[in-house]
Amino acid sequence: MDYLLFIDILGTIAFSISGVLSSMKKRMDVFGILIIAFVTAVGGGTLRDILIGFPVAWMRNLTYVYVIMGTTIFAIIFRKKLVYLRRSIFLFDTVGIGLYTVLGIEKGLAAELSPIICIAIGTMTACFGGVLRDILCNEVPLLFRTKEIYATACILGGFTYFILSEFPLSQGLVFALSGVVVILVRSLAVYFDIRLPSVYGKGDTNELP
Amino acid sequence: MDYLLFIDILGTIAFSISGVLSSMKKRMDVFGILIIAFVTAVGGGTLRDILIGFPVAWMRNLTYVYVIMGTTIFAIIFRKKLVYLRRSIFLFDTVGIGLYTVLGIEKGLAAELSPIICIAIGTMTACFGGVLRDILCNEVPLLFRTKEIYATACILGGFTYFILSEFPLSQGLVFALSGVVVILVRSLAVYFDIRLPSVYGKGDTNELP
Amino acid sequence: MDYLLFIDILGTIAFSISGVLSSMKKRMDVFGILIIAFVTAVGGGTLRDILIGFPVAWMRNLTYVYVIMGTTIFAIIFRKKLVYLRRSIFLFDTVGIGLYTVLGIEKGLAAELSPIICIAIGTMTACFGGVLRDILCNEVPLLFRTKEIYATACILGGFTYFILSEFPLSQGLVFALSGVVVILVRSLAVYFDIRLPSVYGKGDTNELP
Repeated sequence: MDYLLFIDILGTIAFSISGVLSSMKKRMDVFGILIIAFVTAVGGGTLRDILIGFPVAWMRNLTYVYVIMGTTIFAIIFRKKLVYLRRSIFLFDTVGIGLYTVLGIEKGLAAELSPIICIAIGTMTACFGGVLRDILCNEVPLLFRTKEIYATACILGGFTYFILSEFPLSQGLVFALSGVVVILVRSLAVYFDIRLPSVYGKGDTNELP
Repeated sequence: MDYLLFIDILGTIAFSISGVLSSMKKRMDVFGILIIAFVTAVGGGTLRDILIGFPVAWMRNLTYVYVIMGTTIFAIIFRKKLVYLRRSIFLFDTVGIGLYTVLGIEKGLAAELSPIICIAIGTMTACFGGVLRDILCNEVPLLFRTKEIYATACILGGFTYFILSEFPLSQGLVFALSGVVVILVRSLAVYFDIRLPSVYGKGDTNELP
Repeated sequence: MDYLLFIDILGTIAFSISGVLSSMKKRMDVFGILIIAFVTAVGGGTLRDILIGFPVAWMRNLTYVYVIMGTTIFAIIFRKKLVYLRRSIFLFDTVGIGLYTVLGIEKGLAAELSPIICIAIGTMTACFGGVLRDILCNEVPLLFRTKEIYATACILGGFTYFILSEFPLSQGLVFALSGVVVILVRSLAVYFDIRLPSVYGKGDTNELP
């Protein structure tokens, strides 16, 4: 279980920085920045644990709290340097969703849920922190509107996990490869500007009930 | 318990369609439509199960997931036909809240909660999916603003349930009659344009603290 | 445990009135007012209980429901008198967060959580009802934006609790003093217009990634 904790903390750092940057763009106060960082980092996992009925991880393990606080302070202090890291926000976020997706799937399996629910749980773990962040910032969650390959990358990574599990590979390798699929799909989609197909025909607007 | 599952699935279909139509009006992408359909359909029941401390139903029973996915695909493909079903949205939604109210009450009773809490749980099961949908769409929940007889119909149906339970009727009949009361109250209120009384006098605005 | 229930009910009344006034300002209908009062009053405690894994208090104890309903009816009927109580909203709210902070800490201790998590839980109990209220009213939670000393007061009260616990004082005295610290810090901050320091330098806006 040790490598799971390590992966979880890496994801926590990634999401905290993304949360700090989002909230500072909104010019929130110190407390607001910390809360948004916290919610972005642990929101998805908290919803997952509540839905599954597991104890909420960050309440029993102070590591998360210290990591988020440290990352927040670091990001606020070095905010001027973060200007040069514009692309890193994307990188952090992408690595984060890759890690969280697979972690969510493994928690779902530990609760003996079926594969399709595990994939949903993994995607939720990865994406829900950002949705909560957008709700708290009073915006329509970006996730639902942009046709970006974001949750779709998590879902594909989830299918990869269960396909690879059929082969005689070590769990660590299945874990790593599935995470890499999420990261690759998301990165390639952004690089080549691939988007979800539109479900709306021309002039659909007026015809919808 | 079989007929409870059947009723639950009928309600799931009804709310999914209502969710698909709402999110397509907002021109969300495929993933957004699916999530809004899902949240509208299972949001109320999920909150109920978390509050009561029951395992969340849709996580252990794939039927819900398949029904919501199928309904969403169906509704997206036949969206042009749904134009002619404008009134059906209302019908689906109304039958949905009738079914969900009574289902919520029975779950509350199974958890040995008192009647007034059961009625609150039933109303929450029926109405909270729509509230969550509005929050995700970044709107003030319609439920709180329109003076429409909506939650009120659920509450009246809830009282009907506990009044009828005093008489020597079968549980199925009590269930059906209470659901019908919800549907009737809501339909008649819309038909005759009956609304909640205003709590505001003329010129109250300026006087409120 | 009796004095805990009493304190809890005082806080419930305070938050209900604050919720009624907020929702009436938004000209919600009767049902909306009741729901916002309810959410503002029990939202923080409900989230706390779900996160800790405790049964949700108001579902097993009708006292809360009756108190919130009674307070709501009272506040709606005497809304014209409440005009003269503009400052009382502040007072109610401030006493409420003092009480809820310490109550949340004690529930955290009962769940054997570490002090820092208990302080977070206490702050959440005090502040999250208002955050939920703002989300339901489709506003960015005031808590995150105003630089006001609000959550900060709760956090300081929390530290006070654990510092005083080191001394040979009765639990009731520690409870009361910590609550008073929250109330004092908040009141003095408003009186002397003390705010959180800004984390933004001049011209930061354009430089942030």
